[in-house]
Amino acid sequence: MRIALLGGTGDIGEGLALRWAFHTDHEVIVGSRDPEKARAKADEYETELSSRGRDVKVNGFTNEMAADRASVVVLAVPPYHVSDTVEAVSDSLSEGDVLVTPAAGIKRDDDGFHYHPPKAGSVTALVADAAPDGVPVVGAFHNLAAGRLADLDADLGIDTLLVADDPDAKETVRLLADGIDGLRPLDAGGLANASEIEALTPLLINVAQNNEGMHDLGIEFK
Amino acid sequence: MRIALLGGTGDIGEGLALRWAFHTDHEVIVGSRDPEKARAKADEYETELSSRGRDVKVNGFTNEMAADRASVVVLAVPPYHVSDTVEAVSDSLSEGDVLVTPAAGIKRDDDGFHYHPPKAGSVTALVADAAPDGVPVVGAFHNLAAGRLADLDADLGIDTLLVADDPDAKETVRLLADGIDGLRPLDAGGLANASEIEALTPLLINVAQNNEGMHDLGIEFK
Repeated sequence: MRIALLGGTGDIGEGLALRWAFHTDHEVIVGSRDPEKARAKADEYETELSSRGRDVKVNGFTNEMAADRASVVVLAVPPYHVSDTVEAVSDSLSEGDVLVTPAAGIKRDDDGFHYHPPKAGSVTALVADAAPDGVPVVGAFHNLAAGRLADLDADLGIDTLLVADDPDAKETVRLLADGIDGLRPLDAGGLANASEIEALTPLLINVAQNNEGMHDLGIEFK
Repeated sequence: MRIALLGGTGDIGEGLALRWAFHTDHEVIVGSRDPEKARAKADEYETELSSRGRDVKVNGFTNEMAADRASVVVLAVPPYHVSDTVEAVSDSLSEGDVLVTPAAGIKRDDDGFHYHPPKAGSVTALVADAAPDGVPVVGAFHNLAAGRLADLDADLGIDTLLVADDPDAKETVRLLADGIDGLRPLDAGGLANASEIEALTPLLINVAQNNEGMHDLGIEFK
């Protein structure tokens, strides 16, 4: 399967690109608004993978071209760029392509990090509102620490939560998640259940900041 | 230490009462609006503990009398009874007593369970607003499945998150939580960080309902 990581030069994009390229046979395409940056990062990922004995091709393109080539398109961009990015690639999405959103709206104040959803109710809902007809949206990979994900020496042993209204799209992403060693996909229901998942992201940061020796946290449901 | 469980006849109260009485030497007092019910439940807990070789006294009183006798008072009541209950026991709380709130505001709709905080921002904030001066509030034990907690044969191996603005009160509750086998207390910062913790409760239910073989879920940060 071809997976495009829009904003794939950023930290969560890097982690997903490396993990999929390392642990699976899916073809990873790095997207960026700047194609030069996409190509440079794709080369960097290839070098990292090659140093671990995994010689695979990682391509880098504009977001539009990356989305055009892939059947699964991951919006690895900050929450405030999600709507713009969907709009930019809208013509590149075909019916049946799957749009995946891992972003969560958070803000920081003196007390800590807090969930700060957009008016749509969640970033996931924002993506669903912006997505073209016939392109199902799946919320996934919201609660992964980017640094840990991008470090192929780091064990995961954690869960990721999936929400979607389209069962086939959810199953496609469940299999993609399951392909990453140490990541267990769990079903959290429909898109309407996204905000409680996104709210977990600031909580993970608060816990990491308040407990010695804990950082880059994930969670396991048990 | 004497711990009063107001609403200690309910399911989360039962679990905390049994676990503290079984695993620690703290004195557990069951509170209820109905003192007969409190005494009957306290007897039931004693019988359960005795059947496991643990002969300890568990008393049952009105919420007011239970709060009067204890230095840590746990509001094991439904979220919509939290303010009434604090008001009812207000004269029974002495300066330095610690008020613990485990309730989360959730609602159910066709999609699943959702976080539904009161206007104060969180149930924890509601308790802090209602608490008498000089009585610090600690949010804790929000994300525990009542049935699993009350089953002394069930292993926990999960975390509970603490929020408080008073470091001494937080440390008192941290030690109480740590006294329960298999429960790891983690610091999530100040009271302002409570809503992300409460929002985890509906998520745990959504995950349990959507994944075969998962029920009575807790979480581990890792």
